[in-house]
Amino acid sequence: METISTARSFGGIQGVYRHQSAACRCDMTFALFLPPQAQEGKVPLLWYLSGLTCTHQNVMDKGEYRRLAAELGVAVICPDTSPRGEDVADEKDNWQFGKGAGFYVDATEAPYAAHYRMASYIAEELPALVGKNFPLDMARQAIFGHSMGGHGAITLALRHPGRFRSVSAFAPIAQPSTAGWSRPAFEKYLGKDESAWRPYDATLLIEDGHRLPELLVDQGTADGFLDDGLRPWLLEQACKAAGIPLTLNMREGYDHSYFFISTFMDDHLRWHAERLAQA
Amino acid sequence: METISTARSFGGIQGVYRHQSAACRCDMTFALFLPPQAQEGKVPLLWYLSGLTCTHQNVMDKGEYRRLAAELGVAVICPDTSPRGEDVADEKDNWQFGKGAGFYVDATEAPYAAHYRMASYIAEELPALVGKNFPLDMARQAIFGHSMGGHGAITLALRHPGRFRSVSAFAPIAQPSTAGWSRPAFEKYLGKDESAWRPYDATLLIEDGHRLPELLVDQGTADGFLDDGLRPWLLEQACKAAGIPLTLNMREGYDHSYFFISTFMDDHLRWHAERLAQA
Repeated sequence: METISTARSFGGIQGVYRHQSAACRCDMTFALFLPPQAQEGKVPLLWYLSGLTCTHQNVMDKGEYRRLAAELGVAVICPDTSPRGEDVADEKDNWQFGKGAGFYVDATEAPYAAHYRMASYIAEELPALVGKNFPLDMARQAIFGHSMGGHGAITLALRHPGRFRSVSAFAPIAQPSTAGWSRPAFEKYLGKDESAWRPYDATLLIEDGHRLPELLVDQGTADGFLDDGLRPWLLEQACKAAGIPLTLNMREGYDHSYFFISTFMDDHLRWHAERLAQA
Repeated sequence: METISTARSFGGIQGVYRHQSAACRCDMTFALFLPPQAQEGKVPLLWYLSGLTCTHQNVMDKGEYRRLAAELGVAVICPDTSPRGEDVADEKDNWQFGKGAGFYVDATEAPYAAHYRMASYIAEELPALVGKNFPLDMARQAIFGHSMGGHGAITLALRHPGRFRSVSAFAPIAQPSTAGWSRPAFEKYLGKDESAWRPYDATLLIEDGHRLPELLVDQGTADGFLDDGLRPWLLEQACKAAGIPLTLNMREGYDHSYFFISTFMDDHLRWHAERLAQA
């Protein structure tokens, strides 16, 4: 693992690191903020999964998470959204597929199966790496994210019960298997047999019996992707049918950008910190 | 004036606007955050001047000013750092001169005098424009900035006594007329006669009798530009000799980046808001 950069921020350290990923078979970069409390001992770890087109850097620059994470004593890790590099199959000029659009799945179809293994990377490889290299209490993890990454966070928590103390999302895609901007990606990554898509669709995972203790979602009403791409009512219906307590905050006039995310970042950090603090 | 974008953020509006500048003889872009209180009446205006290589966007993305500005009811305006466009004389690959490096001076030397009139732009044209178009209380203004822009803020306040209720800076250049990264720019913008540089050098303005009621400066000790480019001790000496109360906070381990600026943003916003609130 190689340190790309570190900078003091709010008394902690915002680092950027690169490593050879076995899961993705390429170099992968991630950002990790360690709060000041990490100088004294292990701290809980909050995962933030980013949306389409993003790298680790967007939320690091614009998410405004460090002030309160430092106060609460929570580390925040921000992985990339796809494998990277010249060797990685891609569709140039398609922002909804390929690089920057890994959808947190393990692809099974050629040529994507060679590198697009973001589910294994986020769920297995990266936790092992950071648990070994940083003062993180891996028994206390939580997860959240935005859009594609908000959905990624929910599906990871659904597939790994007990691993995350809490899960929340900003403007998550509710049902990627039926949304226009994600169906083509699912078909290319996972094949035409839609039964193989179910482990990567939040509403279908819930339908198939997977559960969360509770869920927090914030969604802007002026979000241009709301009606076609995000459709939080599908998540609402699925949670209601399954008895999963969902707090869905519709935020008047907010869009899909980091202006929206940063506004409600504090609420989400406090939500996670409360649950991470429980014995 | 043209609206490039607006987004709801922390209950207020982060806008980006473009207009034809008479001072700079080109289109200029600026960011303005209006806090929620601006829906009810006029709010005070805080100017943020950015450093070398920046546009209006860097602090808008990474400065983390909106949360507290919204709470305190202060508008924040973030201008660009130089004239822009194909017609504007520049030195490509020189980040310390030309576009992105206007140093907030009115150039007198050809070919730069045609467009590089940032002193007039920031002090005269832009205040008139925003005072007319937005609910801003122009009797309550304050100013701060970073590096080249921290110095710009101090010199503007020194040259316009009474206009700004308060002035502060993150890692300001203390004495550009003698620093290696700014001397060549001053010579190209202002000519070889160094007496013409004095209105654009903070320490020399103070030497020449200009005064501030007080000054707040934060400076990181791990800032790579500290010893050669910034030299806060020169500002300290000038303020001491002139009887200007200076609060100079040396911040252990912080660098020159927005990781540093955002960490101490709240302190500066509170400093200005307190003074803007006075009758």
